[in-house]
Amino acid sequence: MISEQYKSMLGGKSVIRELSEFAAARGKEIGYENVFDYSLGNPSVPVPHTFTDTLIKLLKEKDPMELHGYSPSLGIASVKEKIADSLNRRFSMNYKPEHIFPTSGAAAALAHAFRAVTAPGDEILTFAPFFPEYHPYVDLTGAKLKVVPADTNNFQINFAAMEELLTSKVTAVLINTPNNPTGVVYSEETLKKLACVLTEKAEQFGHDIFLISDEPYREIVFEEKKAPYVSQYYPNTIVCYSFSKSLSLPGERIGYVAVNPECREAETIVQMCGQISRGIGHNCPSSLIQLGVAEVLDETSDLQVYEVNRNLIYDCLIRLGFTCVKPDGTFYIFPKALEEDAKEFCKKALDYDLILVPGDSFGCPGYFRMAYCIETEKVMRSLIMLEKFVKEVYGVKESV
Amino acid sequence: MISEQYKSMLGGKSVIRELSEFAAARGKEIGYENVFDYSLGNPSVPVPHTFTDTLIKLLKEKDPMELHGYSPSLGIASVKEKIADSLNRRFSMNYKPEHIFPTSGAAAALAHAFRAVTAPGDEILTFAPFFPEYHPYVDLTGAKLKVVPADTNNFQINFAAMEELLTSKVTAVLINTPNNPTGVVYSEETLKKLACVLTEKAEQFGHDIFLISDEPYREIVFEEKKAPYVSQYYPNTIVCYSFSKSLSLPGERIGYVAVNPECREAETIVQMCGQISRGIGHNCPSSLIQLGVAEVLDETSDLQVYEVNRNLIYDCLIRLGFTCVKPDGTFYIFPKALEEDAKEFCKKALDYDLILVPGDSFGCPGYFRMAYCIETEKVMRSLIMLEKFVKEVYGVKESV
Repeated sequence: MISEQYKSMLGGKSVIRELSEFAAARGKEIGYENVFDYSLGNPSVPVPHTFTDTLIKLLKEKDPMELHGYSPSLGIASVKEKIADSLNRRFSMNYKPEHIFPTSGAAAALAHAFRAVTAPGDEILTFAPFFPEYHPYVDLTGAKLKVVPADTNNFQINFAAMEELLTSKVTAVLINTPNNPTGVVYSEETLKKLACVLTEKAEQFGHDIFLISDEPYREIVFEEKKAPYVSQYYPNTIVCYSFSKSLSLPGERIGYVAVNPECREAETIVQMCGQISRGIGHNCPSSLIQLGVAEVLDETSDLQVYEVNRNLIYDCLIRLGFTCVKPDGTFYIFPKALEEDAKEFCKKALDYDLILVPGDSFGCPGYFRMAYCIETEKVMRSLIMLEKFVKEVYGVKESV
Repeated sequence: MISEQYKSMLGGKSVIRELSEFAAARGKEIGYENVFDYSLGNPSVPVPHTFTDTLIKLLKEKDPMELHGYSPSLGIASVKEKIADSLNRRFSMNYKPEHIFPTSGAAAALAHAFRAVTAPGDEILTFAPFFPEYHPYVDLTGAKLKVVPADTNNFQINFAAMEELLTSKVTAVLINTPNNPTGVVYSEETLKKLACVLTEKAEQFGHDIFLISDEPYREIVFEEKKAPYVSQYYPNTIVCYSFSKSLSLPGERIGYVAVNPECREAETIVQMCGQISRGIGHNCPSSLIQLGVAEVLDETSDLQVYEVNRNLIYDCLIRLGFTCVKPDGTFYIFPKALEEDAKEFCKKALDYDLILVPGDSFGCPGYFRMAYCIETEKVMRSLIMLEKFVKEVYGVKESV
């Protein structure tokens, strides 16, 4: 019989997708170059040439049966080894290939991590504002996602609110730094305090609390800074990584789980991922793509454009009187709307062909997200329109 | 906390994998060319050049942001259209792109199909002998796999045994034709009778019974025959396809779900697959690979070798006194062992470097599987060894 559970989900369309479809439709009317589409987090800079060249070389030179043959259920050994080496080199870790499990992007990595360290009925804590897909990702495992309200002052962790929700039912905590939608990077201080709280509570409850660190934006940090590497602060950390953003490969669905070598039963957790795959139909990412990214692990796309865009947008927002935390990385910014209902605000912005996403589905009403992975020239034109929108609708502050 | 459910699965290693690992280890001792490894269903003929050429062309010519960008959550529109057209052309169907959902191989296709038409607690019926992975595939959805005993006379469906197990708890029936491990193709007569039984029982129970048709071997049929196309016989049919075998691309994880246009709520089921993906972390197969296979939908690898191998092996088995149903397709054969315990039989064969898989894990004890996707020259050498084994251990029949 047709599953009522999944059928009933069909009504609840993603707000981001809806806005993105609106932008595409509007683009057909007035030319997409005139739609200031800040809806989707689709990278706007190409993958490094090395990746393309590697794939072409593999296709031309390697025995196709070997190239396209079954990969081992825990991933291609040489790829796992290269990922471990790259992480060790860049973040002073001690990963072995046995700690790495290649996945079809971060979504698949999270699907494995949740199942590895929670049971149905358990609670997973995350922090607002958060990527709205966390809800179906978690809820469909049988665990429950609980959301700690935001600290809107700086979008670090609201520890007071966290402690209220951190009951013994919580077996995993999910963080995302650099953060979608705020662009904020959790500070060393935040991560140390988080580790402290989790260690204390795990002892008090008599069971482990795993930290699941969703890190697709790890490499996109501005002003030549680096995001603190989460696993260095807490042993029971499981990294879920994706190359979608750093290498601009979202359609290729490639990422990995990296279990901290100091994590309890680290290697067992990776082996369990192989078992989880059997139930969720995962069975490894594409061999060709695994082998391709293995050659560009220390590279990224040319990410500079995101910093240029951030500066332009942030400066303009401040000038126009918005309240806004300055992003440290990613390609998102999360300002406060100019009226209480951010949905109304974003709706009015549509009249100016500004596609902004209200913060409600990120668990932070009253704010809105701009995904500024678009061309800088378009950003500049959009800011002229933003100023027009703000002046005409809200009448605040003149241009300086 | 670490999931006890998945941790407890770590003991139960796949027999096929174990034998394959044994073969690899033995290969290191005596040279892999001397190990007659019939364990794994890994294709032994290369993908058609068109596929490789298409990928190289895409990589060289297409805008990398478009090529590697997010694909829509229900798959790339042009790919879906081409798959529908190819199926319509070849099997006189009326698929539209809305009936097609690209997946990461057949495993992912099955993971979606099971969830779309069953709820936890429901029963899914399948037929022995069957691909052993069906157990974790089904059981981890919360549904239960029930196995109808084999009709060892011809490995068609044992309808008497089926009717005993077909209770109102059954909401889906899973078939695999051409079949792994027997190589048998279900006849038109079998499919018509199956459709008849399912229609009658669905009416009696007052609920739909869906037919999930796992078809990775659909194109590998011998003597220029075609396998009957299952969806033509029963409206509520969901095809789960993989290009792994027909195009020799198992590592690329590419396949699809094709819902019969005459199926109840066919388009809704495809949309539900998009929702199911959110829970299991699927989110589409690789864009590059989707676009690549779309150009070779009517092609296959050069599959002749499998027929040559079948003839050699079947003839030899019969000559040596084995009881064996002649395979119509795939690259498997499933003879009766020469002693009651096929595990013992296969164990003894190891002394002759013959790697055979006992039928127990396929739900059919007393038989064994040979995956003859290996070079013909090796098949010929292996048959000399098989004859030696049979004569020395069982002393039956002289060579004719």
